[in-house]
Amino acid sequence: MKELQIYNNLLQLPLFLGISKNDISLIVAHTRFNFSTIRAGKDIVKEGDPCHELFFILNGKVEIKTVSDDGSYYVTEISEGPSVIQANRLFGLHQRYTRTYKALEDCKLFSLDKKEVLRLSDQFVIFRINILNLLSMENQRYEHRPWKKVPQTLEDKITRFFEEHCIYPAGPKTFYIKMNQLALEVNDSRLDVSRALNNMQDAQRLTLYRGRIFIPALEKLLM
Amino acid sequence: MKELQIYNNLLQLPLFLGISKNDISLIVAHTRFNFSTIRAGKDIVKEGDPCHELFFILNGKVEIKTVSDDGSYYVTEISEGPSVIQANRLFGLHQRYTRTYKALEDCKLFSLDKKEVLRLSDQFVIFRINILNLLSMENQRYEHRPWKKVPQTLEDKITRFFEEHCIYPAGPKTFYIKMNQLALEVNDSRLDVSRALNNMQDAQRLTLYRGRIFIPALEKLLM
Repeated sequence: MKELQIYNNLLQLPLFLGISKNDISLIVAHTRFNFSTIRAGKDIVKEGDPCHELFFILNGKVEIKTVSDDGSYYVTEISEGPSVIQANRLFGLHQRYTRTYKALEDCKLFSLDKKEVLRLSDQFVIFRINILNLLSMENQRYEHRPWKKVPQTLEDKITRFFEEHCIYPAGPKTFYIKMNQLALEVNDSRLDVSRALNNMQDAQRLTLYRGRIFIPALEKLLM
Repeated sequence: MKELQIYNNLLQLPLFLGISKNDISLIVAHTRFNFSTIRAGKDIVKEGDPCHELFFILNGKVEIKTVSDDGSYYVTEISEGPSVIQANRLFGLHQRYTRTYKALEDCKLFSLDKKEVLRLSDQFVIFRINILNLLSMENQRYEHRPWKKVPQTLEDKITRFFEEHCIYPAGPKTFYIKMNQLALEVNDSRLDVSRALNNMQDAQRLTLYRGRIFIPALEKLLM
């Protein structure tokens, strides 16, 4: 019974996509999944923590917080499992998390040690292809950004700024940023940025607070 | 003799880094390397070509050309082997080259079929780790871009634009872009951009031509 549940959970995760039922049984039987529950309000990983393992969130709401390099603004997004936490940090030069993941509800998750990830990618070609696909897909998306057509209006420029600072291009986002910082980021005057944001608020696409911008659904801004 | 040369060539490529002499001998003996020479002036790969194999440039000068999505500008860089061509396009959603690689001199190269890449990554854990490292490293670099401190001056903003549109942050680059397009990209007036570029030209950091900006050494702009 428990095994069936793990099986169903795994199949929803991109890294286990397309693996046969037989192979999943083998994986479940021979892999050390470190299951845990993170209580609401607790951090799952913190920005700067070393990344020695992959964390998979099976269910529960998670807040993802990313702070700009100079600390002048930060962004929070809400994610609901199943998902994997910053798979692009297990290898490469910078093997630390750059975002903080906090459980907003009790979250079920498991982790796979780096050695286990390498072992699975050794034994199951689909797992290997899945991890190569995942890393390449993100890589392609990020690489492509500077080559996109430049936004024409200031509202579009602000929207592009929002989009580039989010992992998922949909769902609720909160930007903790001052109006003059946003003006610097899009290279426009504070007054023009304020006007554009107020227009966007009038169109019910976002809500302005002191030092904070709430976007209820980023996908509506991107349409 | 020939094998020794291949051995030395392979060890200079990031994907074969750290592989033992014994393993390299095994690899050389059992892998189908499709060696070829591309004559000066010919394209090695073209933007839009499907990516079914990895091309490794062993030596020779190569021009890499990238065109913006809307075709309003393009950039050329010069690379001298050894290097690999767009390794992030072999997997993921978009398995096509997004840049055109042209031989400026006669270039020696070899290619590895996708199946061979998967086989090597199966048999040699270091090869697998190397490919995961390479994809993750690029991924991390691209992902980090929007979070960098915003440039303060217009010259710095223009420099940031150049940097984000280059693969290697050093060496000669040519931007085929009109002054008013660059003004749109950095969201400033054509006149201010023209002034900033002329200042940069006076400081001998770039040379302005009609519709073209030549940067002799990008690393000097970034200092």
